[in-house]
Amino acid sequence: MKVLVLNCGSSSIKYKLFDMDHKAVIAQGGIEKIGLPGSFLKLTLPNGEKKILEKDIPEHTVGVEFILNTLISPEYGAIKSLDEINAVGHRMVHGGEKFSKSVLLTQEVLDAFTACNDLAPLHNPANLKGVHAIDAILPNVPQIGVFDTAFHQTMPDYAYMYAIPYELYEKYGVRRYGFHGTSHRYVSKRVCEFLGIQPEGTKIITCHIGNGGSISAIKDGKCVDTSMGLTPLEGLMMGTRSGDIDGGAVTFIMEKEHLDAAGVSNLLNKKSGVMGIFGKSSDMRDLENAVAAGDPKAILAENMYFYRIKKYIGAYAAALGGVDVIVFTGGVGENQASARWGACSGLEYMGVKLDAEKNKVRGEEAVISTDDSKVKVVVIPTDEELMIASDTMAILNKEA
Amino acid sequence: MKVLVLNCGSSSIKYKLFDMDHKAVIAQGGIEKIGLPGSFLKLTLPNGEKKILEKDIPEHTVGVEFILNTLISPEYGAIKSLDEINAVGHRMVHGGEKFSKSVLLTQEVLDAFTACNDLAPLHNPANLKGVHAIDAILPNVPQIGVFDTAFHQTMPDYAYMYAIPYELYEKYGVRRYGFHGTSHRYVSKRVCEFLGIQPEGTKIITCHIGNGGSISAIKDGKCVDTSMGLTPLEGLMMGTRSGDIDGGAVTFIMEKEHLDAAGVSNLLNKKSGVMGIFGKSSDMRDLENAVAAGDPKAILAENMYFYRIKKYIGAYAAALGGVDVIVFTGGVGENQASARWGACSGLEYMGVKLDAEKNKVRGEEAVISTDDSKVKVVVIPTDEELMIASDTMAILNKEA
Repeated sequence: MKVLVLNCGSSSIKYKLFDMDHKAVIAQGGIEKIGLPGSFLKLTLPNGEKKILEKDIPEHTVGVEFILNTLISPEYGAIKSLDEINAVGHRMVHGGEKFSKSVLLTQEVLDAFTACNDLAPLHNPANLKGVHAIDAILPNVPQIGVFDTAFHQTMPDYAYMYAIPYELYEKYGVRRYGFHGTSHRYVSKRVCEFLGIQPEGTKIITCHIGNGGSISAIKDGKCVDTSMGLTPLEGLMMGTRSGDIDGGAVTFIMEKEHLDAAGVSNLLNKKSGVMGIFGKSSDMRDLENAVAAGDPKAILAENMYFYRIKKYIGAYAAALGGVDVIVFTGGVGENQASARWGACSGLEYMGVKLDAEKNKVRGEEAVISTDDSKVKVVVIPTDEELMIASDTMAILNKEA
Repeated sequence: MKVLVLNCGSSSIKYKLFDMDHKAVIAQGGIEKIGLPGSFLKLTLPNGEKKILEKDIPEHTVGVEFILNTLISPEYGAIKSLDEINAVGHRMVHGGEKFSKSVLLTQEVLDAFTACNDLAPLHNPANLKGVHAIDAILPNVPQIGVFDTAFHQTMPDYAYMYAIPYELYEKYGVRRYGFHGTSHRYVSKRVCEFLGIQPEGTKIITCHIGNGGSISAIKDGKCVDTSMGLTPLEGLMMGTRSGDIDGGAVTFIMEKEHLDAAGVSNLLNKKSGVMGIFGKSSDMRDLENAVAAGDPKAILAENMYFYRIKKYIGAYAAALGGVDVIVFTGGVGENQASARWGACSGLEYMGVKLDAEKNKVRGEEAVISTDDSKVKVVVIPTDEELMIASDTMAILNKEA
């Protein structure tokens, strides 16, 4: 059984083709600059080599067709015929309150998803373009939608409601939704397998720390709180996003800088976070180098970044009534020992004790707490695409 | 020695006259509706009886003069002559980064305070009016300023900086300042006296929970973090204030409701919080009654209110590396057993164990945790005015 996983953005499409009999990726790559000059497909060959194929890609259907042709091309292909593709799984961004799990994409489902466009005006329409492109080219292949927000739908109301007039929730759906749900779900499931424990009765805090970042509190395998909100701006300090900020500061900045809502939103999403404080880059590797060189703003940015993760771990331990397992994942969470160390230092009072040696691990599954640490701290590389492919298989099998 | 404490708002003046030799309040009351129809002075007589004196009070100097005349009036007075007033202490709201402790109000100080007007455009000018009124009537009496923000000035940069472009901090002073500082300082000091411990080496979380609410993390007697931010909007859910909210939700609401910065600020400050969710009142007593009657929105509002306090306690325990003492103060914190219980339930993992019986206390100093609770949980009624009077005395004695 082969499953194609697509992640369609407004000007990009990432893909991975899975052979689910071996849970193996047999082809992967991505298209960038759709509708822009210089669009191209970049694929990773089985030997790890990258290959760039330039082509004019005015819109998503052309892009999807280009991907499919590449999959069956004699030179770079992984399969002989498109008939080998049993299903397509899509990463879908904002499922609102309508989707609490992955679903077969019927017209009814697509209508419900379209109704959530308002909540993710850039992402949802792009996701839909990918679905329609597949529909146009492979009309008989079942498509499954896997929503970034779905895993968080188990949050209790007191965790997801904002303390604003209730009618704003009723009229526009203003509430916390959370994102990175597929990643939080994957690593919280995987860490239980890895440790040989059951999700039931286990309190887990998952830290997905990358260029974007979010933290979730998970009890009995279900999300009970998460740091991103109505939008992916809330919560941790990120590469270019501010994370938590006084709502009063938002309006203060608007008035001082003469910005409208779109202007301040752009400032908070694109010019803030690590980039805003450090000023030279939003990349944590650049930041680490600048910290090593003694740059005071880099040091401040790093301290802020770590401190905010630590505070969320503390808050979610309180929300859960203690914690059994802390998971680090995402580009920074998987690879940056200093971030894990910075975030966990001082948490001994709740039973967290990192092992400096074990914490050196990069990008592989490993326990990084000491043997006598009450809380197990674990690195689990995330694999959202595998989760999407697995959901796709599960739904196919159920529908069959 | 007698100290008059004034708290001047834009249309109100509260006052207390202290006999500092006995740390006793010998007169107290307040003026309301300055500049509005129906202005009056309401005072509390020594026997606890309230008395209302109506009078046209067009502006603050008339109001201060009215207060002073009442203090020496044969009928309601507490002193014989204004000469008995040795000093006046003022509650000042926003001292920005300029004031980390209380100071004698010289012209230079007043200029520096005026420079902070931008950060508190309603409150600071009103505070200044009170100072100028005293200056006009009692030009030889020393005046001392006690700032709401001062206690929080010891926060480290990584706690007070927002992850936004650094130049917004440089240009406009956008950062976390925190408020209720005089209350957090008073109760954190007082709880150490009460428990017979030293501030040095002690980790304290102070929860000032009233119609407004904020939480502070205090180490060695110094504030290291606090939940209010640039403005008093951030942090806990309050009577009419939203507390923490996704910055992305702020701009989303603006666009949906066609609000400008002032409009959404008004919504978040005046129509949100308990009032926004419950819909019928912003008062916690009304809310408790509605919860008892089974009102679903009241139950939601209460759960949100408690949950957010709990998360902050968790976050600040992480910030402090554990906690030794949790203090509840403010109207709700001092009097509402259910709020303390709701906020502390599930915190056993960090050593918090409330005693249901002891927790019934209202408005008096008491330990409410069990004897074997690792963390001492204590109710300490706040007394900002006494703190202001004490600071005033201390500065007088130093200047003398």
